[in-house]
Formats: sequence, C-alpha cells, structure tokens
Amino acid sequence: MSIFSKELSDMDDLFVHTLRDIYYAEGRIAETMPRMIDKATDLELRSSLQHHLDETRNHITRLKRVFELHGAAAKGVRCPAIDGIIAEAEEIVGETADSAVMDAAIVASAQAIEHYEITRYGTLIAWAKELGRDDCAAILDETLREEYAADGKLTDIAEARVNRLAA
Amino acid sequence: MSIFSKELSDMDDLFVHTLRDIYYAEGRIAETMPRMIDKATDLELRSSLQHHLDETRNHITRLKRVFELHGAAAKGVRCPAIDGIIAEAEEIVGETADSAVMDAAIVASAQAIEHYEITRYGTLIAWAKELGRDDCAAILDETLREEYAADGKLTDIAEARVNRLAA
Repeated sequence: MSIFSKELSDMDDLFVHTLRDIYYAEGRIAETMPRMIDKATDLELRSSLQHHLDETRNHITRLKRVFELHGAAAKGVRCPAIDGIIAEAEEIVGETADSAVMDAAIVASAQAIEHYEITRYGTLIAWAKELGRDDCAAILDETLREEYAADGKLTDIAEARVNRLAA
Repeated sequence: MSIFSKELSDMDDLFVHTLRDIYYAEGRIAETMPRMIDKATDLELRSSLQHHLDETRNHITRLKRVFELHGAAAKGVRCPAIDGIIAEAEEIVGETADSAVMDAAIVASAQAIEHYEITRYGTLIAWAKELGRDDCAAILDETLREEYAADGKLTDIAEARVNRLAA
C-alpha cells in the first residue's frame, strides 16, 4: 500500500490491514524459527521453539479462517516491524560465538517476536469486538493465549538455566 | 557491528549490546512521539502520549546512569526492530484519513512500541541480575514499570472511547 494514499478510511480497513500485517508476520516467523531451533543448544529451549513453530503454522490456518469469516482476501502486506525484529534477531545470533550465550540471545530474540504478536493480536481482538465480529475475536484470542504461554515458557527456561549458563 | 564478526562473546557483551540497542530505540521513540501527538485528536490520548514522552526522556537519562554504573560507554547501536516498528507506525498513520480512525491507529502503533520496550527491558533486567548488577536491574525496573503502565493506559483509552468512535 502506498504511503502517499489515504487508503485506510474506516476501522474495517484498519482491521483488515492489520490482519494482513500479522499474516505476513506469521509467515516470516514460520520461515525464521527453524534457523533459531538449529542454532539453539539447550534441549528444553529447542523443544519449546519446535512446539511454538507447530503452533505458528496453526496460527496461519486460523488467520485464513478469520479472513474467510470476515469476507476479506487472505493475503499479506509487508510488515517492516517484523522484518526489523527478525533482522535484529539474525544479527545478534550471528554475532554470538559461545553456545550458552547464543541460547540467551535466542530467548531474547524469540521474546521480541512474541511481544510483537501479543500487541497485534491484542489490538485485533479489541477491533474485532468493536466491529461486532465476536466470531473473529474468539479465534484470534486462541492464538493470543498461545503467544502469552510461549513468552512465559521462554522466561521460565531463561530463568531456570539458560541465563545462568551464559553468565 | 558487522554481521560477519563474532563480537558478542559473553553475556556482558550481550548486555551492553542490548543496552545500546534500547538506548538507540528510546532516542528514536523520543523523536517520533511528537509527530504522533500532533496527529492525535482525542484529548486524553494526547495528554497520555505527552506524559509518556516526558517519561521517555527520563528513560534515556536512566540508561546513561546504567552505562555509567556498568563502566560502558553510553552510545547507541542501530536497532532494525524499532526502525521497522516506527516505519510501520508512520505508514499506517500516513494512510489514515479519518481522525477517529487515526486515533485508533495511533494507539495500536504506540502499543507496538511499548511492547518492544517491555520485552527488551525484561531481558535486560534478567541479564543484569545474572551478572550481579542488581543496581542496574533496579534502575531498569523503574522504566519497565512505566512502560507497562503506559501500555495499560493506552488499552484503557482505546476501550473507553477511541475504538468505539472509530468503529
């Protein structure tokens, strides 16, 4: 969408635009996570990321269902935010030599991704409810709960072991 | 920092690198918020963003104190994540014609910024504690509490009025 246009004229436009933003973001996350899993050493961190990769693929399926319910085409719009978050994750992980420090960097990077998803799904749920789309809100809320759980699990792993081994 | 180097060899490097990342990010946020305030219409949203802009300037002062305590030079490193989040905020706000829809877009954009800060400060506090820098962790925690409060306030404003007017 051109930045010179004024294409978002009502909340429905904003809702669909943000759905397309997170749809693109989930696709980029699903592409990136296997590389993070490959680089991780801690077994619980690896299995937690693998579990969340499976969930991420399901989030994409759920988004398609939301597009369908709302009568909008399921397509992505480039999301500079997730591109930047992923570029930064790859940069930090690429600069880290020690495997324990790498695990700590991977946790931090994965949590930055989770928080981006948490804020977007939180907004989408609020807007869906205002638009009278409780059906869409309920589906998006299933995903939001999984994002919160993934973030909490990463905190647990970091605090239990990963940060101590890296320090 | 070059992506071809392996410059982050221990957690102290990672801590200082991430401090520099959020130091750069806070600077960019302080530059961007006045434009968001200018575009906002809702009076409570405007005053809440203005209050958080004042806090943001204080977060920069606090980060300088953390650099000083930790004996590291206070400087920024380019943070592709916040650059992307801000680019996306400016794109969405630039595409929105109606002032009520603009307010909803501004809340969403400001919350994406808050969540980036929440994840980075959360990580920095955990790492500071592992490094035995409870003094740095305590300062960073003051900022984290303000980021959570700013995010919560934006949710309250959106739910009380902004989203309903936009819908």
